[in-house]
Amino acid sequence: MTRREFRNLSDPAAVEEAIDTFELSTGPESVELSAAQGRVLAERIDAPIDVPGFDRAAMDGYAVRARDTFGATETDPIELSVTGTVHAGEEPAEEIDAGQALQIATGAVLPPGADAVVPVERTTEGETAVDVRTAVTPGDSVMPRGADIASGARAIGPGTLLDPRHIGLLGAVGRERVPVVGQPRVGIVSTGAELVQPGNGLRPEAGEIYDVNTNALAAAIESAGGDPQQFTTTSDDPETMRVSLAEAAEETDLLLTSGSTSAGTADVLYDLIEEHGEVLVHGVALKPGRPLLVGRVFGTPYVGLPGYPVSAMTVFRVFVAPRLRAAVGQPEPAAATVDATIGTRYRYDGGRLRLLPVGLVEDGEGSLVAHTLAKGSGATTTLAEADGVVQMDPERTLLSKGDETTVELFDPDAPLPSLLVVGAADPVAFDLFDTLAAPRHLALGRMDAQRWFTDGIPDLLIATGSSPVDGDVLGRWRREWGLAVRDGTTLDGLADLPDCQFANLDEDVWLRDAFETALTDAGVDGEDIEGYHRELPGLESAARSVASGRADAGLALCRTADSLDVSFVGLGEQDVSLVAAQDRREKDGLVRLEAAIDEFEFDDVVGYTAGDF
Amino acid sequence: MTRREFRNLSDPAAVEEAIDTFELSTGPESVELSAAQGRVLAERIDAPIDVPGFDRAAMDGYAVRARDTFGATETDPIELSVTGTVHAGEEPAEEIDAGQALQIATGAVLPPGADAVVPVERTTEGETAVDVRTAVTPGDSVMPRGADIASGARAIGPGTLLDPRHIGLLGAVGRERVPVVGQPRVGIVSTGAELVQPGNGLRPEAGEIYDVNTNALAAAIESAGGDPQQFTTTSDDPETMRVSLAEAAEETDLLLTSGSTSAGTADVLYDLIEEHGEVLVHGVALKPGRPLLVGRVFGTPYVGLPGYPVSAMTVFRVFVAPRLRAAVGQPEPAAATVDATIGTRYRYDGGRLRLLPVGLVEDGEGSLVAHTLAKGSGATTTLAEADGVVQMDPERTLLSKGDETTVELFDPDAPLPSLLVVGAADPVAFDLFDTLAAPRHLALGRMDAQRWFTDGIPDLLIATGSSPVDGDVLGRWRREWGLAVRDGTTLDGLADLPDCQFANLDEDVWLRDAFETALTDAGVDGEDIEGYHRELPGLESAARSVASGRADAGLALCRTADSLDVSFVGLGEQDVSLVAAQDRREKDGLVRLEAAIDEFEFDDVVGYTAGDF
Repeated sequence: MTRREFRNLSDPAAVEEAIDTFELSTGPESVELSAAQGRVLAERIDAPIDVPGFDRAAMDGYAVRARDTFGATETDPIELSVTGTVHAGEEPAEEIDAGQALQIATGAVLPPGADAVVPVERTTEGETAVDVRTAVTPGDSVMPRGADIASGARAIGPGTLLDPRHIGLLGAVGRERVPVVGQPRVGIVSTGAELVQPGNGLRPEAGEIYDVNTNALAAAIESAGGDPQQFTTTSDDPETMRVSLAEAAEETDLLLTSGSTSAGTADVLYDLIEEHGEVLVHGVALKPGRPLLVGRVFGTPYVGLPGYPVSAMTVFRVFVAPRLRAAVGQPEPAAATVDATIGTRYRYDGGRLRLLPVGLVEDGEGSLVAHTLAKGSGATTTLAEADGVVQMDPERTLLSKGDETTVELFDPDAPLPSLLVVGAADPVAFDLFDTLAAPRHLALGRMDAQRWFTDGIPDLLIATGSSPVDGDVLGRWRREWGLAVRDGTTLDGLADLPDCQFANLDEDVWLRDAFETALTDAGVDGEDIEGYHRELPGLESAARSVASGRADAGLALCRTADSLDVSFVGLGEQDVSLVAAQDRREKDGLVRLEAAIDEFEFDDVVGYTAGDF
Repeated sequence: MTRREFRNLSDPAAVEEAIDTFELSTGPESVELSAAQGRVLAERIDAPIDVPGFDRAAMDGYAVRARDTFGATETDPIELSVTGTVHAGEEPAEEIDAGQALQIATGAVLPPGADAVVPVERTTEGETAVDVRTAVTPGDSVMPRGADIASGARAIGPGTLLDPRHIGLLGAVGRERVPVVGQPRVGIVSTGAELVQPGNGLRPEAGEIYDVNTNALAAAIESAGGDPQQFTTTSDDPETMRVSLAEAAEETDLLLTSGSTSAGTADVLYDLIEEHGEVLVHGVALKPGRPLLVGRVFGTPYVGLPGYPVSAMTVFRVFVAPRLRAAVGQPEPAAATVDATIGTRYRYDGGRLRLLPVGLVEDGEGSLVAHTLAKGSGATTTLAEADGVVQMDPERTLLSKGDETTVELFDPDAPLPSLLVVGAADPVAFDLFDTLAAPRHLALGRMDAQRWFTDGIPDLLIATGSSPVDGDVLGRWRREWGLAVRDGTTLDGLADLPDCQFANLDEDVWLRDAFETALTDAGVDGEDIEGYHRELPGLESAARSVASGRADAGLALCRTADSLDVSFVGLGEQDVSLVAAQDRREKDGLVRLEAAIDEFEFDDVVGYTAGDF
């Protein structure tokens, strides 16, 4: 294994410069009018016809010669003889002569001889005549031929981002197909032998993981106006990768890879790009995103993104998306930044421009609070729980609580979470959340959750046991907990645990404390239990270990054991409280949550009882 | 022809109430992950697996037993024997024992026995051993199994609008398909015998026009999250329409018609809805939009929109789109209003809530100025040139220049025009505009154009002759004008015109004045010319009349005659000036325009010469 380290990191501006040299614009393409929305017009469209193509009645009424109505008033109407009717979409059968009128519908052709329309409201209809109760002048209630747009006139300019209004105008001038700016084909080759496409079986014991970046990048490419093309995920084998790159480069205008750019396994990509193209940038002074590779391969512009999802998406958003939007003429998203106050202290070792992913929540006064995310750029949950990034200059090493900052939003159109919740995982709380508009629950550890709540960041804390914090309790209930037990395992209580393969839960899972108390009460020493230190990360993890036969018994909720269809030995009950931040009580999400709690049928859930509070 | 008039207009709130009774939500549907962007998640997704599914190296380096590194420092490293290598995507071949290390790549499975990774940067590689220059503790540089998200944990809540970040997380937990909120099928039946679909031939003499609303509404439905279904445009014949409605109602969750709702031809729609369903609202106190029909037909919710494009789109936007977005769980567009100052006075007869379409332009200080549009709700150009609407209460009858107001934007993401231009149509000016980012040219008449410019609304005036206004002349050129002449017509100059069928241009076309001056100079009386009063609306209209054989001669630019391949008799030259508003000179669009003028090759355009200024 040779390793290429990044000794000279490029400035982010140098990356922009390198990517600016890419020619990504493709020729215009012709699309059907019904598919033109969201595309950018490639050429000016001049009207090939007059719209309307005839002098057109703008009201229901009577087509007349204006001079015949001269002097007509409400009290002294003028009678005109009605010689017929003209509907929209038909050619007038006759001319109008002096003293005559033709009944006419909105949109119909003004008959020859007529020069105005008297609205029906200003007439009184007789058998074969009409009393006109107002005088009109030539052109009244008529849209003349070409008055909307005249043949040969400029209708829409090139570069227009087509929305329903433009689609309407293009229809009006008879366009069935529209020339639009072509979408650059952007290839994605996610590299790594460990990657498996979603929907296929996974062998975690062999280090396999599902491919995150291919689908996330495809969606991001689409948003930026590109046409994503997914290529088979390749292994790190140089020859396989060379063939993949050559094929993908052939079919695309820009080629992205993700993974294999870090100072890792054999630097396969670097060597391939150098051999079959050129490397313009290798390594950027940016966090996340350092192991970036920019160049050309097999004649196609190339950006090698890091493999970590947050890093890959950050590099794409910062460097690639703006270039793509420029190539297709899409405007930069409006209002892409918001002001916020830092809610969680953050230390940074500096030296590179830091794009720190943060989540956002509205405080009681409607201001935004930004919080960091605990799991780092290797976690996909970091990606989904962040709303944007805070820029920290390379010299800056600290964000303090209360600092004013600007957050670059990932997606200005994405709604912020209706509620920010921390604390215990609880099936009933989650069922309640399902009735609200997308609240966000951060799986923080117990200590962090309480500290964040005390620091005024989340709207809501899900606490177990006696409530350890100040706040308004919106709801409280009891949940039965105990041991999920594998079929065939004889186990009556805690005293039998030392004879089992046990699956424990992490201290950060808010059930562990109840278990510890029970162990103490029962006089059982955890160290005597095989698997006591096998601490699993999620509320359901131990029960799932039991369900899949990896353990004989596991710490679990009755509700979880039931849903997994695993036997259960009850050991006790635990209080769960939903504690609202006092200054957020008016927040719509909390008001709705309280209403949902009031209506919730706790008796319908196995192992749950409603609490008094 | 019977006519049903609107004697009792409903309040807009009553329309909202009626439409709120519609059940538009459809069941969830399953889409591929690659098609899930922009859709709304229908169910909570819990992680079915641990992510990662194994204890995972977070750095390139050496997998070790942390206790073996105790005491290691830069100056006093500890040597461990290297027993092998584990790459990402492979199962570790061996366990780690005391004193041993395994070379490991980021993402690889931590081998049994190891509990930490020493980053490669803190080691010195030997032949079969490694010097570890730092002490690590258990868990260092390792992402434990399930630490990103644990099996059974809540990953994403229902109601989430899926963007690339969520797509990434759904991929991470292995989802190949995603349950999303179904899109209501919204049928569009545009009614009217006069309607022809774009792409087909048009008989304007029979009052035919291209269908504007079907395509515009389809695009608007799509934007609001619905699935547009276009049905054959029907005639006003009751039986044909009944069959169309029955068929469309069968296949859709909401049925829209446009047209035929005004007090017009036979009230066919009203009668059909009443007979085969129910009418909830007929007529609303709103302008535009009065002839609105809300009800049910053949069991399907129904909204009858007015036929005029601006009216139809307004009613859709105000009443239908919010209901559709609610049904699919899409958020209301953010930042949908802006503050602006009224630039053009507007009088209104009141009595109904007025939603006045306005265009917007940024003034020299970056504030927005709103202007009305001249052509009314029957014009599709009104639709394309408006950026939003100003609400006027029924009691309000006047908007004065300088009034502060709020504009509801049609599309918050749509960029405002880079330049607002009024005045003469000119082919070279339009060629210059094609090099800019979608400037907007309003085809105002001469007097209006000058007044608007003096009132400080547009950025630029295209003036002919000697510049009649104050402003900075960005560019000036001369264009040759004269008569486009039909083949076979003998015509040497103005004196021959009385012998021809002549096509004149409207006084609002900025070529007419040059023609009038020339007539006077030549001593020709316009009244002697057959067709002198045939005043056509656009700069090219008369030449096009000649090209299509409808006239023998027509007032035209040399450039136009050339492009239409029609003979031309020159009569003179006309100055064209691009005059910039003095307070807007820093505007990007004007700066770019000036640069484009500098580079423009006037000699390449037939009949043009660059001017001095």
